[in-house]
Amino acid sequence: MAPRYKQFEPKWFSGKIPANSYRSIFKWGDPNKIKAPRESLYQLIRDQFGLSDDTFKDYSENLGLDEVKYNLPGNLSPAQIAHFQELVGRDFVRTDDYARLSVAYGKTMYDIMRLRHQKVENVPDAVLYPDTKEQIEKIVEYCAAEKIPLYVYGGGSSVTCGVECVRGGISLDLRLRFNKVVSFNEIDQTITVEAGMSGPKLEETLNNAQTKFGAKRAYTCGHFPQSFEYSSVGGWAVTHSSGQNSTYYGDIQDIVKGQDYATPVGNISTDRYPSKATGPDIDQIMMGSEGTFGVLTHVTLKIFRHMPKTIKRFSYMFKDWETAQSAAREIIQSEGGHPSVFRLSDPEETSIMLHNYGVMDSPLKLLFSSKGFKINEMCLYLGFTNGEAGFSRNCAKNVHRIAKRYGGIWLSGIVTKSWEHGRFSDPDLRDTLQDFGIVMDTMECTVNWSNMSQVHRDVRAFVKSRPNTVCMTHMSHVYPQGANLYFIFITREHDPEEFKRFHAGILDAIQKSGAAMSHHHGIGKLFGPWLEGSIGRNEHAIYRALKKHFDPDNIMNPGGTLGFDLEEKDKRFLK
Amino acid sequence: MAPRYKQFEPKWFSGKIPANSYRSIFKWGDPNKIKAPRESLYQLIRDQFGLSDDTFKDYSENLGLDEVKYNLPGNLSPAQIAHFQELVGRDFVRTDDYARLSVAYGKTMYDIMRLRHQKVENVPDAVLYPDTKEQIEKIVEYCAAEKIPLYVYGGGSSVTCGVECVRGGISLDLRLRFNKVVSFNEIDQTITVEAGMSGPKLEETLNNAQTKFGAKRAYTCGHFPQSFEYSSVGGWAVTHSSGQNSTYYGDIQDIVKGQDYATPVGNISTDRYPSKATGPDIDQIMMGSEGTFGVLTHVTLKIFRHMPKTIKRFSYMFKDWETAQSAAREIIQSEGGHPSVFRLSDPEETSIMLHNYGVMDSPLKLLFSSKGFKINEMCLYLGFTNGEAGFSRNCAKNVHRIAKRYGGIWLSGIVTKSWEHGRFSDPDLRDTLQDFGIVMDTMECTVNWSNMSQVHRDVRAFVKSRPNTVCMTHMSHVYPQGANLYFIFITREHDPEEFKRFHAGILDAIQKSGAAMSHHHGIGKLFGPWLEGSIGRNEHAIYRALKKHFDPDNIMNPGGTLGFDLEEKDKRFLK
Repeated sequence: MAPRYKQFEPKWFSGKIPANSYRSIFKWGDPNKIKAPRESLYQLIRDQFGLSDDTFKDYSENLGLDEVKYNLPGNLSPAQIAHFQELVGRDFVRTDDYARLSVAYGKTMYDIMRLRHQKVENVPDAVLYPDTKEQIEKIVEYCAAEKIPLYVYGGGSSVTCGVECVRGGISLDLRLRFNKVVSFNEIDQTITVEAGMSGPKLEETLNNAQTKFGAKRAYTCGHFPQSFEYSSVGGWAVTHSSGQNSTYYGDIQDIVKGQDYATPVGNISTDRYPSKATGPDIDQIMMGSEGTFGVLTHVTLKIFRHMPKTIKRFSYMFKDWETAQSAAREIIQSEGGHPSVFRLSDPEETSIMLHNYGVMDSPLKLLFSSKGFKINEMCLYLGFTNGEAGFSRNCAKNVHRIAKRYGGIWLSGIVTKSWEHGRFSDPDLRDTLQDFGIVMDTMECTVNWSNMSQVHRDVRAFVKSRPNTVCMTHMSHVYPQGANLYFIFITREHDPEEFKRFHAGILDAIQKSGAAMSHHHGIGKLFGPWLEGSIGRNEHAIYRALKKHFDPDNIMNPGGTLGFDLEEKDKRFLK
Repeated sequence: MAPRYKQFEPKWFSGKIPANSYRSIFKWGDPNKIKAPRESLYQLIRDQFGLSDDTFKDYSENLGLDEVKYNLPGNLSPAQIAHFQELVGRDFVRTDDYARLSVAYGKTMYDIMRLRHQKVENVPDAVLYPDTKEQIEKIVEYCAAEKIPLYVYGGGSSVTCGVECVRGGISLDLRLRFNKVVSFNEIDQTITVEAGMSGPKLEETLNNAQTKFGAKRAYTCGHFPQSFEYSSVGGWAVTHSSGQNSTYYGDIQDIVKGQDYATPVGNISTDRYPSKATGPDIDQIMMGSEGTFGVLTHVTLKIFRHMPKTIKRFSYMFKDWETAQSAAREIIQSEGGHPSVFRLSDPEETSIMLHNYGVMDSPLKLLFSSKGFKINEMCLYLGFTNGEAGFSRNCAKNVHRIAKRYGGIWLSGIVTKSWEHGRFSDPDLRDTLQDFGIVMDTMECTVNWSNMSQVHRDVRAFVKSRPNTVCMTHMSHVYPQGANLYFIFITREHDPEEFKRFHAGILDAIQKSGAAMSHHHGIGKLFGPWLEGSIGRNEHAIYRALKKHFDPDNIMNPGGTLGFDLEEKDKRFLK
C-alpha cells in the first residue's frame, strides 16, 4: 500500500501484477508489495526535476502488464532437448516464452527499460532446472561436447547484464531446486551449500542452526548485499559480491572457504583450508570468473556467531565532505576493530536521506543550524558494530571518540534504524518512480583514500552534466587503504539506448578518474568493454589464458563477459 | 659466547668462521654470534638420544670451515656474460665459486648437510646483482630470448629448495642493491618497496617513518616470520609467507596490496585497490607462484600503526591437548578480536620449552602438580595482543575469560617474554647441535579444527617411528576454521640422502592425514612431487596453464618447482 500523503497523492501503481507479465519479471521485491516514496522525498524529486504534481497524475511509461510473448525460435535440436530432459527430468526443461525471458535479464535499468518496451532479445533456447551437482557436471560435459552456449541464472539481481544469454543455448535456473544445504560443520564454523541457495534462505537456516542441525549456537552468514533478497550464494562468489556489513565480516572473497566447479575440461574442487602456501590460490582464480570458466556448484562459506544483542548503532553528522572523509579514514585505520555497517554519505545523499527519513521535520534540524552546519554541505555517517560484546562496545566507543574529535554531531541510533528499515526495500522505489519516466540506477567503484576526493568530483561532474539529475554518493565498504564510492543517480529518460549511453559515460568517468571499474557489482557484459583498458593488456591476457584453458570453445557465458570475445574496436580506452 | 654450565660443558663451536667458507653460507644468524642451548635443554637432548657427555667432547661432523672450491664450469657464452655486464654493470656480475654457491641453497637441513659434506651441485653459471626494476625487466626479456634459466635469491631462508638452480643459468641476488623504498603513502597506509628489501630493514624504516618520511606516526609491517632476519619482502609474497603475528595482522596474501612482475611475456602490474570485483584477483594469481611465472620487482604492502605500548602478553597452561585445542578454538571463534601472537604447544613441545625457559626450576612446577597437571600431558599457550589500546585490552580479557573457563592456569607474561627473546634466534641452535650429528628441522601444514587431532596423531606417529626422535608440535597461525600445525623434529643423522628420505616420509604422512602440504613454507622443488597429488589433477592443470602462458620455454625457476616439469613417476600419491 502507498503511504497516505497530506498534500497531493501521485498515482503510484498499486494494482495486481499478472503472473505471466513483463512487470512480474522486472519488478524488484515482493510482487504483492508496492513501495512509494515518503511525501517529503516525493516533493524533493518533483522539485528537483522541475515538475509539477500534474506529471504524477498518470503514467508516462508502459507498466509492462501484458503477457510475455515473442517470436524467437530456439536453435536446439529435438535430440538435444531430449538429452537435457533425460539429465534433469522432463518437467525441468522449459522452452516457453516466459521461462526463457525470465532468466535473460538482470536488474540494471537498461534491462528494465527494455522489458517495459517489450524489447526481447538474447533469450536462451531452453531453461534447465537442475537438482544436483552431478546433473550440472553432466550438463556442462554435454554442452562442451555439443558446443552449446551455457548461461547460469542464480538470484537474478545482476546489474551488469551478467546473465544475458547473448548466444542463445541454455540457461540453468538454479532457484527452483539447486538451493539445498550440503553440509554444516559447527567445529570448523562452515556451511556448504548448492550455488542456487538464496541469501534469505541461507541466513534463516543459519539463524536456526540449533533446531535445524542440533547446533550449540545460532549463526549468521554475515553477508547482506542490497540485493540480498534476490541474490544467490553462487552469484555472490562468481561476481565478487560485498555485503552491507562487509567492513566487519569481509567481502565474499574473505568468506568463501572452498568451491566446486563444473568446467568444460573437467571438475574443479578447491581445498577447504583457511590458509595455505601451496601455489596460487585457486579459490581466487575461480572467484570473479562470472561463469566464463565453469559453473559453480558447491560453495563452502565461513559462518559467524549470530549475536544480534551485541549490536551498537551509531550515527553522526559531519560539517562537510572533507572532514567526514578524514574522520572515516581515522576510524578505519585506528585498529580499534572495524564496525560492521560503515556508511558515509556525501552532501547530496545526506540531504535526500534526511528528507526520506523525516529528520528535516525533527528538532535535529535546529541543532544543525545552531552548529553552523549547512544542508548542502553536511555529511551523514551511520553504522553499527557486531562481534563479541566487549569488542562491539569498544569499537563503538572508538568510533565515538574519533567522530567527536572531528566535530561530528551525535544523532543517536535512530537514523541508523531508519536506514536499516529500508536497507533491502529501497530498490522497490525504482519501479514506482519509473512509471512516470524517472529512472534510478547505481554505479560503484573502489578508490584509495588519496584519490577519494578526485574520483568523487570527476564522476559527479559527469553525472551532473546531464540536466536535472540527482547524484547521491556514499562509501559503504571501507578498508584501511580506501573504500568504495557508490553513486545513485536519478534522471528522466524514456529510451533504453539513450540511457545506456549515459551509463557508458559514467563508466568512462570512473575509468578516467583512476578508480577500479567495479567494487562489488562485477563486470558482466555491460562493463566488459572497459575491463582490458582498466587493468591493462598483459593483465587481461592472464584472464584470456585461463579462459582458453577452461573453455577452449567459448561456450561458458559467452558474449563479452569480462571483456572476452570482444573486438578491439569495442574496447574502451586501451592503454 | 656459549653459556657457562654448572656441570659438563660441551665443546660448542665458538671459533671464527672464515669469510669464504661453507659454514659462512649455511650458518644461521649473525656469523659472530654463537647460540648454545641452556644447560637443562642440553641435558634433555643428551638423555633423549641416550647419549653421554662424551659425545659432546668432540665434533662428529665436518664444521665446514674450508674455503668454497669446486669444479663446475658455467655454460654461459662470453657474449651472454658481456650482455649481462652491460645491463647491470661490470662489477655486478660474478662467476666465482663462492658467489655461485652462496645463492644455490636455502636453509633446509638437507641443504645444510650437503654444504657440510661439500656436496656442490646445481649452482648458477653466474650471479647478477640488479639495481632497478628496469634492469630486471631487461634481464628477463633477454633470458626469454636466449632461453637462459633464471633463478632469484631474496633472503635465502627457503626450506623447500626454492632457490636451487637446478638448470644452471643465472641467479639474481637481490640482497645487495634491490632493496630500496620506492614510495611511502601515509594517507593510504601503504609502502612500496623493491622485492629484495629485507624484513628488518623494512621494519626499521617503518618504525622510523617520522624521521625518514616526515610521517605523522610510526608504522609496522606486522609481518615477522621466524626467518625474519634472513627474509625478503619478495620472498614473502611469492611463497605465501606468514608472520608470527599473523593471527592479528594477516598472512602475506592479506598484506600485499599490489605487485609488479617481469615475465617472459611482458610486465605485469596489478592494481593497488583494497578490494574490487573486476575479474579474478591477479595479485592472488601471482602470489605463490614461487618465481615460476616471473620475477617479482615492486611490492606494495599495507602498513599498520606501530603501537608497542598497547601490547598485552599472556600465557596459560592447559591440562591436556584436547582441552587446549578446545580453548584455542573458542578464543579464535569468539569474535572478541584476534590476538596477534597465538601459539599453542603440544605436550612434547611444552615440556621442552619449560626446560628451555627454566620454568621447571621455578615455583610454577609445584603449581602444576598441585592442580594435577602432568608434565607429559599439559600444554602451553602463549601470545600477545596488538591494536588500539581498548581493542588490545578487550582481546586479552576475552582470552583470559575463555582460558579460565577451560581450566587454564595463568602463567603471567614472563613465559611469553622468554619466547619473544628467542623467537628469531632459536634456529641458531641448529648448527651448534649439528656439529655433533644432531639434526633439527621443521615441517608444517594447515588443518581444519575438525581434523586437528588426527593430523597431529598421524604425523607424530610417523616422526616418532624413527628411534630416539624428538617431535615438538605447535599451532601458531590460527583462524576460525583451523590452524597450522608446525612440527619441529630433532634426530641423529649424518647422511643427507637418508635425512631426505625421512623428510619425504613426513610429507607422505601430512598428505595422507588430509592436511595442506604447506601452511607458509611454500612448495619449492623439495615438496614439488606431492603438490599435484594433494590438490588434484584438474586443479594442478590450472597452474600448468598459467605456467604455459607466462613461461612457454620453462626458464623461470625450472626443475620441479610447484611440481612443474616433473615426470609422472616422480609424483607422489596422485589421486
